[in-house]
Amino acid sequence: MEEREISKAVIKRLPRYYRYLGELMENGVERISSGELSSRMSVTASQIRQDLNNFGGFGQQGYGYNVKYLYEEIGKILGLDKKHNMIIIGGGNLGQALANYVDFEKRGFYIKGIFDVNPVLKGLSVRGIPIHMLDDLESFIRDEQIQIAALTLPKSKAEEMTALLVKYGIKAIWNFAHIDLDVPSDVLVENVHLSESLMQLSYNITRYEKEHPRS
Amino acid sequence: MEEREISKAVIKRLPRYYRYLGELMENGVERISSGELSSRMSVTASQIRQDLNNFGGFGQQGYGYNVKYLYEEIGKILGLDKKHNMIIIGGGNLGQALANYVDFEKRGFYIKGIFDVNPVLKGLSVRGIPIHMLDDLESFIRDEQIQIAALTLPKSKAEEMTALLVKYGIKAIWNFAHIDLDVPSDVLVENVHLSESLMQLSYNITRYEKEHPRS
Repeated sequence: MEEREISKAVIKRLPRYYRYLGELMENGVERISSGELSSRMSVTASQIRQDLNNFGGFGQQGYGYNVKYLYEEIGKILGLDKKHNMIIIGGGNLGQALANYVDFEKRGFYIKGIFDVNPVLKGLSVRGIPIHMLDDLESFIRDEQIQIAALTLPKSKAEEMTALLVKYGIKAIWNFAHIDLDVPSDVLVENVHLSESLMQLSYNITRYEKEHPRS
Repeated sequence: MEEREISKAVIKRLPRYYRYLGELMENGVERISSGELSSRMSVTASQIRQDLNNFGGFGQQGYGYNVKYLYEEIGKILGLDKKHNMIIIGGGNLGQALANYVDFEKRGFYIKGIFDVNPVLKGLSVRGIPIHMLDDLESFIRDEQIQIAALTLPKSKAEEMTALLVKYGIKAIWNFAHIDLDVPSDVLVENVHLSESLMQLSYNITRYEKEHPRS
């Protein structure tokens, strides 16, 4: 496949394509035109063609897209054909919610352990995933070849923990703490800032109300 | 303030400005130049000036930005100066995690109730927020003037619940279910698709590994 710079906007849409194609496969659909895919996804057909052309196309004139093939190719681009070992830092509600997502495993993300400082949680497990204390963190990351750490800690503890994770060799952090982490350039961070998402909604509500004043 | 179309990219950055300005205020900083704000936020100074110019500026040459004023103005743009009543649909780990976020209240989002179908949860509460059964949903939305519903249900139940919420008058849905909701045009949806965020991370890991092969 040709290598070139792909825009962030395209990359952001890929997981959504992947999800839709997965649903089509589950429903036994073998091929689909960009037009059909477009009406399902509320994206224009030309946008879809353009997006997928970034990866060398996959479509055939008059045939459309082979659903399974496209699904697998997008999966490869997203790195979902590889196994990613993951830990969750923080055994609170959010950490447990993540541990309960079975879908992650289907996509190649294996949650190997949950870490917390609360001794009450020691020895417990969530969906068979054991909760460890922090003493075990360094050896666990090494022995279990952990690549990704999901950070579900309060903001106040997130920085210190990030320094520790980086020191122990973690290369990718899925950050739920409401703070921008300061990491070396070889450590990747993906943020999920829930407050900011809620503020987007609030912005849209405010704009909508301005545009549609109640009579 | 002048009304014009503001790009989605700018809107997406506003909550982050808001967060940084809030932190500056907490630290007693009264004014800041776009240069200083830029180095803290890893955004270029010209980007910051350009973004804030969308809202009529706020900055003064040679003075910089008044932190409190800018914070409050961005807050107004984001609708955070108003009170938003909210319910959480789904009393599982994720629903409980959301109910435990005290930060939401500071931003004007008041979680009034949690709804679930599981009778075991009936009468329980999370941080003082009562868990109700669905029978109460319609009257609760009306009596408590609920504007936003956070949807933390499995995908299989999300569509049916959305139809119900829309019928009962909910105008904004904060959707955590891994599905694109089909709603009337006057209902706003903000999605938090956790799997897709994890896929972005996986994409970046894959790309990084390609660009930096281990020797």
